[in-house]
Amino acid sequence: MAKQHRALRTRQELIRSAAEVFDHVGFADSSINAISSRAGMSTGAVHFHFGNKRALGLAVELAAAQSLLHITGRIPLRHPTPLQHLVDTSHTLTQYLLDDPVLRAGFRLGTDATWQGDGDLWEQWQDWVQLMLTVARDQGSLAPGVGVEDAVYAITAVVAGFEVRARRDAEWCSRQAVTRFWRLLLPRLASEDVARTLVPEGTVTPVWPLDENGTDALRLPGDAPAEADCGVA
Amino acid sequence: MAKQHRALRTRQELIRSAAEVFDHVGFADSSINAISSRAGMSTGAVHFHFGNKRALGLAVELAAAQSLLHITGRIPLRHPTPLQHLVDTSHTLTQYLLDDPVLRAGFRLGTDATWQGDGDLWEQWQDWVQLMLTVARDQGSLAPGVGVEDAVYAITAVVAGFEVRARRDAEWCSRQAVTRFWRLLLPRLASEDVARTLVPEGTVTPVWPLDENGTDALRLPGDAPAEADCGVA
Repeated sequence: MAKQHRALRTRQELIRSAAEVFDHVGFADSSINAISSRAGMSTGAVHFHFGNKRALGLAVELAAAQSLLHITGRIPLRHPTPLQHLVDTSHTLTQYLLDDPVLRAGFRLGTDATWQGDGDLWEQWQDWVQLMLTVARDQGSLAPGVGVEDAVYAITAVVAGFEVRARRDAEWCSRQAVTRFWRLLLPRLASEDVARTLVPEGTVTPVWPLDENGTDALRLPGDAPAEADCGVA
Repeated sequence: MAKQHRALRTRQELIRSAAEVFDHVGFADSSINAISSRAGMSTGAVHFHFGNKRALGLAVELAAAQSLLHITGRIPLRHPTPLQHLVDTSHTLTQYLLDDPVLRAGFRLGTDATWQGDGDLWEQWQDWVQLMLTVARDQGSLAPGVGVEDAVYAITAVVAGFEVRARRDAEWCSRQAVTRFWRLLLPRLASEDVARTLVPEGTVTPVWPLDENGTDALRLPGDAPAEADCGVA
């Protein structure tokens, strides 16, 4: 059991180290040597635990996808305030994009032309935004004349834009930047009575790390996803 | 004169080649060797015309900044339809981001953590958006309650998001994607009577290349900026 725990820990450290190296130089130019030395290990450790660089890339992507699933939570089809939940989740996501190198690397792999993975975190995020907006529309929370697809494009693009501009200036992933966007958009997006109740600043404070051991970002496939905060104050 | 022309042509070809290599692997991992062979030249040509890789990076950034200046044009402080001009220019910019490797490399250098340049194309774009929105506000075209700063953040972030997602799927820089965004935002951004006159699809068709020799993207400092299309049909 102690041995299994050690192996898991080694895998987690290599995933984090790989995420940091991908972050700096992109997938194509990341060497197994750079990844293993960053984790204070030999290249043999990478080969033993993952086989090759692509498998390590897939492990980073999977860990990031699990983190995103934790941040968005299960889709609550009857969520009482889907638009507020969307606002809150966008604040949490941008905060985690700054703080969690594995999550960030997962998203960046999704826009790295040299990487062909199993999924694309931007698409996972986009699908979630689409579902939340559909829930909002079905319960009459959207303003008349707002197209769900138009809003999905704008909201996913804006978060991608925050991430890319934050590479130079972290301010772009700040609560203030995200609040500015929602302050502009919500009066257009939400029906009049719902708009009055919405808080562009968000109603939850993101907690970092995801749990006190930071292991959520590295949960293994088959583990149950954690219950997510519903985003209601 | 023929010799000067040849030297200019060589510089232009190296700038384009450098832009393409930066695009693929980022600035840090671009080698002078890869850049010169892509242009079918020796590394000596890079050293002769630019001195070093950083100087070549600055030349790419400058050429891209000139292209952006051409796309946005001089700030028309009394533009009759500033919001339509903003819509049209965003369509032109996203189209050129797809088609012009030098412009694209210039913007990407602005989000490349390994590059320290003289300017940042995202900031140049952001400043232009801010000025157009200020013109719009001063002539009463903005809806009551819209903050210019909020709109500047949203519009620049959304275009950055389109660029980053188009690295995998060009659809994100299409007229359709940009139209979706404006269809959502304009009814919120513009005053009621102005909103009725605006065309989210844009009213001009971007012409590619910038001129028939494609040299505008590579204009030298000191050249007068070209008059830009005013964006009015």
